[in-house]
Amino acid sequence: MTKIIDPYGSVLIKDYEKIINEFGLEHFDNSLFPAPNRLMRRGVVFAGRDLKVISDCIKHKKPFYVLSGIMPTNDKIHFGTKQVVEQIAYFQSHGAKAYILIADLEAAAARGVSLEEAKKRALEFQIPAYIALGLDPKKTTFYFQSENKEVVHLAYEFAKKITLNEFEAIYGNADPGRIMSAVTQVGDILYPQLKERMPGIIPVGVDQDPHIRLTRDIVRRTKEKKFYLPSSIYHKYTPSLDGSMKMSKSKPESCIELPEDVKVVTKKIMKALSGGRDTLEEHKRLGAEVDKDMAFELLKQHLIEDDEELGKIYDAYKSGKMTSGELKKLTCEKIAEFMYTFEKKLDDARKIIPTLHFIKF
Amino acid sequence: MTKIIDPYGSVLIKDYEKIINEFGLEHFDNSLFPAPNRLMRRGVVFAGRDLKVISDCIKHKKPFYVLSGIMPTNDKIHFGTKQVVEQIAYFQSHGAKAYILIADLEAAAARGVSLEEAKKRALEFQIPAYIALGLDPKKTTFYFQSENKEVVHLAYEFAKKITLNEFEAIYGNADPGRIMSAVTQVGDILYPQLKERMPGIIPVGVDQDPHIRLTRDIVRRTKEKKFYLPSSIYHKYTPSLDGSMKMSKSKPESCIELPEDVKVVTKKIMKALSGGRDTLEEHKRLGAEVDKDMAFELLKQHLIEDDEELGKIYDAYKSGKMTSGELKKLTCEKIAEFMYTFEKKLDDARKIIPTLHFIKF
Repeated sequence: MTKIIDPYGSVLIKDYEKIINEFGLEHFDNSLFPAPNRLMRRGVVFAGRDLKVISDCIKHKKPFYVLSGIMPTNDKIHFGTKQVVEQIAYFQSHGAKAYILIADLEAAAARGVSLEEAKKRALEFQIPAYIALGLDPKKTTFYFQSENKEVVHLAYEFAKKITLNEFEAIYGNADPGRIMSAVTQVGDILYPQLKERMPGIIPVGVDQDPHIRLTRDIVRRTKEKKFYLPSSIYHKYTPSLDGSMKMSKSKPESCIELPEDVKVVTKKIMKALSGGRDTLEEHKRLGAEVDKDMAFELLKQHLIEDDEELGKIYDAYKSGKMTSGELKKLTCEKIAEFMYTFEKKLDDARKIIPTLHFIKF
Repeated sequence: MTKIIDPYGSVLIKDYEKIINEFGLEHFDNSLFPAPNRLMRRGVVFAGRDLKVISDCIKHKKPFYVLSGIMPTNDKIHFGTKQVVEQIAYFQSHGAKAYILIADLEAAAARGVSLEEAKKRALEFQIPAYIALGLDPKKTTFYFQSENKEVVHLAYEFAKKITLNEFEAIYGNADPGRIMSAVTQVGDILYPQLKERMPGIIPVGVDQDPHIRLTRDIVRRTKEKKFYLPSSIYHKYTPSLDGSMKMSKSKPESCIELPEDVKVVTKKIMKALSGGRDTLEEHKRLGAEVDKDMAFELLKQHLIEDDEELGKIYDAYKSGKMTSGELKKLTCEKIAEFMYTFEKKLDDARKIIPTLHFIKF
């Protein structure tokens, strides 16, 4: 475990406790937030920074924002994105003003996707997918990075506030493209505060923490504009189906994309790392190793909303009454249902895209 | 003499020949260009890159551009700027499309001048000053960096094309602000080619060569867009009045600003490094050391257009017939006349600012 986590890499973080200590994060505390969502209740959300600030905004109905970015490079998303959207939706339903930026500048620079192509993909897929996963588009401000001059101006301003050594200390390395992307992200994170001075929260995976640290460092030394330090909230990765790393397209047989053909997904799940024992006799005697079971992890993180329902499955599997095959079959049914609903909502969402409010610059 | 010349520093380059060898520049050759201007004829313009390309455009009346940037941080300019404007005016009069960008993003980032203030200064002083010094505004495209999204998009694209090591090799060091400024300048330099595929020439002081090298490196590896390698043309610095360095505001008693009060300028010139001898007898016998005389340098570089007139003064001074006091008096008269004309033209230019064409984005 290195102290520097590369937000552009793809590494499974096994020891989240160590991360909390090393990065100076707070443990996530459900009691701070009303009606915690599935990810919060089940320990998938595990840490944060300055969560009390956001908790107070919710309690006292004070303005705050939640912000996230869309990288419009693909025509698929993954479960990690689903986690982010569910966090946004949670804060939105508790009063947050949502900001969604489309990182077309970064997509063009990093992946060679033209701005026009990036815009097309965002409008035809990513934004509808976010809406299908729970984002309330009526309470969301969308913008394209390439059109937001104020963000670019902030990026230039902020670039002068950090040295190369500080950048390397945070990111591990510093190539020019990464530097520009990073300071632009800092601009994005603070941009809503140009509109209205208010705290904000950024839901992130652990690998995105460098952007949060860089932003907080820059806020501390930007005395002339009084920005709030951004709060952040961290969720664990959805693991790859073989349990070896975080779910990632780089290992397609262990990765489920949204959307993906149900037959293909079913095959992948049938091959997923199981907590079942070697023989049925042993399974019934010892019960499953539920914590190692990737199908169960999918149910827990993504596919079963009701805690009681999940608890019953856990008990049956843990005690050996439910076999690994039965659990996988159930998971396949649930994911088929999920994919069906997702695609339907995606179609509905596409219809309302023309009615959305994009900031014009 | 170091191989790396810091374009943000202020060092007098004594050995221009060495620079030509080390940077791999071409010697400037007057025969390439029709009706060479004062700076070309007198060896102030001393080197270039790919000058033949531009020479051919002029000869065959093919489209090409000349580009320069305005840093709108001050309400004064200096003789180095005058040299650049005269080069632009030369190429403009020989068919070049001129592009003048106002580097307000850099001014805001590097000097803390707000975009609004930068815009105000550019419109009220710098642009009128360029026109007063010979820029033809009717044949010039002006834009503000902060409003030119296409330049910013190019900057993001280009940042991915260089490594930190390459950047350090060119610039000597690489802090994040400098990196962003530099790739934005590359975007500026190539931007006219997005409008029309054509060669371009950038008049620069030696200290600006890193931007040219970076741009050329990036063009060579940007195969997907077929940019022409930018040509460049270099002029020697106007030296400070004590002859110790390039003329710079950091040594105000040795620097003449445009505009500046004539009485103040006169005092400065009277104290300038002279090529006169210690006694009148010696002066008449040995003649002046003209090459060391900073007043003569001003006449040569800036104040006397007519070669014959300058030649007569040179002969009289060199032979000892003209005294140092007489030469300084003449220089003071010429600079008073120059300042008077400059301020008058500045007033006239201010009146036409509202009629100029700025690119709107």
